[in-house]
Amino acid sequence: MTAAGRGASGVLDRVEAARRRRPKLRDTHITSAHGAGGKATATLVDAVFLEALRNPLLEPLEDAAVFDAGTERLALTTDSFVVTPLFFPGGNIGDLAVNGTVNDLAVAGARPLHLASAVILEEGMDIADLRRIVASMAEAATRAGVSIVTGDTKVVQRGRADGCYITTTGVGLVDPGLRLGASLARPGDVVVVTGPIGDHGITVLLARGELDLSADLRSDTAPLSALTARLLAAVNTPGGDGTRDGGGAPGSGGAPGGGGVRAMRDATRGGVATILNEVAKASGVGVVVDEAAVPVRTEVRGACELLGLDPLYVACEGRMVVIVAPEAVDTALAALRADPLGAQSTVIGRIVDDPPGTVLLNTAFGGTRIVDLLVGDPLPRIC
Amino acid sequence: MTAAGRGASGVLDRVEAARRRRPKLRDTHITSAHGAGGKATATLVDAVFLEALRNPLLEPLEDAAVFDAGTERLALTTDSFVVTPLFFPGGNIGDLAVNGTVNDLAVAGARPLHLASAVILEEGMDIADLRRIVASMAEAATRAGVSIVTGDTKVVQRGRADGCYITTTGVGLVDPGLRLGASLARPGDVVVVTGPIGDHGITVLLARGELDLSADLRSDTAPLSALTARLLAAVNTPGGDGTRDGGGAPGSGGAPGGGGVRAMRDATRGGVATILNEVAKASGVGVVVDEAAVPVRTEVRGACELLGLDPLYVACEGRMVVIVAPEAVDTALAALRADPLGAQSTVIGRIVDDPPGTVLLNTAFGGTRIVDLLVGDPLPRIC
Repeated sequence: MTAAGRGASGVLDRVEAARRRRPKLRDTHITSAHGAGGKATATLVDAVFLEALRNPLLEPLEDAAVFDAGTERLALTTDSFVVTPLFFPGGNIGDLAVNGTVNDLAVAGARPLHLASAVILEEGMDIADLRRIVASMAEAATRAGVSIVTGDTKVVQRGRADGCYITTTGVGLVDPGLRLGASLARPGDVVVVTGPIGDHGITVLLARGELDLSADLRSDTAPLSALTARLLAAVNTPGGDGTRDGGGAPGSGGAPGGGGVRAMRDATRGGVATILNEVAKASGVGVVVDEAAVPVRTEVRGACELLGLDPLYVACEGRMVVIVAPEAVDTALAALRADPLGAQSTVIGRIVDDPPGTVLLNTAFGGTRIVDLLVGDPLPRIC
Repeated sequence: MTAAGRGASGVLDRVEAARRRRPKLRDTHITSAHGAGGKATATLVDAVFLEALRNPLLEPLEDAAVFDAGTERLALTTDSFVVTPLFFPGGNIGDLAVNGTVNDLAVAGARPLHLASAVILEEGMDIADLRRIVASMAEAATRAGVSIVTGDTKVVQRGRADGCYITTTGVGLVDPGLRLGASLARPGDVVVVTGPIGDHGITVLLARGELDLSADLRSDTAPLSALTARLLAAVNTPGGDGTRDGGGAPGSGGAPGGGGVRAMRDATRGGVATILNEVAKASGVGVVVDEAAVPVRTEVRGACELLGLDPLYVACEGRMVVIVAPEAVDTALAALRADPLGAQSTVIGRIVDDPPGTVLLNTAFGGTRIVDLLVGDPLPRIC
């Protein structure tokens, strides 16, 4: 599904080089940073999971694995949700778990089909809360046009969980001609975000009530499958070779209607910065972001400044980053903006040749700094 | 996939009647019994999950949902594993999580294709333990012929989990002609188990070291996909109508090669007794079990007697219950016994007309008693 699976050797070399650049796992015990989606997570996943389980489908570490099943092409994705608190403005762990999995399918270019849901409950949990959560799952599934068709329920002793944890897995159908992936970015491509970033992370943080801060904010949790379908229909013709590895020299791009979307990623844990780093490393390219162009709500920016957080690392649950070939940008923006969930879509940066594997930010003050993978875990358990 | 989805109205009526027989949820808070797989679990799943999420694929509450995806027929199943301790004789949470999901696909008649794995880690967990667990997952996946193609890693604070919890989801391909399900049992059918029961549950219980007991026991955790494939190849011809709802009058059975396997279930949480209750209720039939015919190892029987447990409720992780049409029993037993994992397959009972929805045990002492769904949770967190 991406370079490692089927690509030209140049792409494989870049992926291999990126792999070699990853740091060794030196930790002996799990820390919260291993769950933050940043550098420690990447190292753990690489050194423990990928090392033992390595296979061509897992290797690209995309949000969803894409593979042939008989005559069909399927996408499969799974996520555990451990958000605390369970309820927050704009949503709860239930709709978050459904939307998160729907979105991982959507950004893989899949049409979400069915979900599975496994719930780990803490002894003593209020069943009225569980009913509200499951009702939200049902509503979110209906909104996204999917069904939860199978599930599992486990109970652990009081104190061995935190109310409930939900693992949602989704299956979707992918057009056989479609090729998307973080390794397909090429110099000249454009970086789009589909709306203001960081709403979800800051909302959850404030909902914990541990900070003497409040803001009129809601989580942006939402299903992106209609938005991605609309975008791909406008910009990518399945089978158009602009989206295939080796479909052109670097920078050749794809024409509108010919595979102009290179990659889509929902900007969850680790935020936009993490995704751009993954794209830079997987494609062996540089990414330059214009800080002034990044949409951040005043409330989010204010909370981030007070808390010493960079909004680029704060999670969204209904926003995505789209890498688009230059010729397709206008069409892509028009398609995205035609949907309420993408109404504020905007260009925030571009893909460049150098330095490969690196994200650079042109700051509002006229300087330039490197935006690296997240170190540590400033916002634990926001999803 | 079973009666509720497509069946004759008589079957629908029986399922509806069984549904109405289910008790109302009166609990206000989660207790360990809700995770035991017995009566409380069934009530919670029915009143909270099924009530809110109801759809024809979820409704049968089989181990896996079976549905059409484009031109293919897929099975999807998910399970969270919260076993304690993480390591026990014969396995650990890693191979258990892979085998459990492979088996849920296998008993749905699916050929396991790919797995997804989501891990919730407790801060402070020893990464060397995690490596051992993931290595076991890799080995189990290789043994079962599947790959783990996507995953997720979350971390929760110390004390908010118990080392790690693993949720494994599997996708498999199902022959379009195949019909299996707990609602397809008919009077005259025969109940087979594929080996000694209760090894896993008692092994895990003893591994906790809380009891002054030891025994030379190992978990039976194993992938059953080769065994089910062999059985179906020998006994069921896909498309043979002996396995379809309404394919014959009650008791007409299926001939060998014509759909003789009605249902398969791996006897995990809640044990053989729970499965037989599910079959009795879903098919609106009675099940009569001959206690003397149920294979139980001396060590398991001894531990059960000391602990006041009934082996019929103790979990296995590599045994299944098979409901077979009478004409197909010899062929089925021969096929099962040809595989090391089914070498000790044996008939333990039969399906009868009355009393519908009930499992009766002919005891070794010549009496008869009802084997109901489990109440309470004598063996928490064995999977």
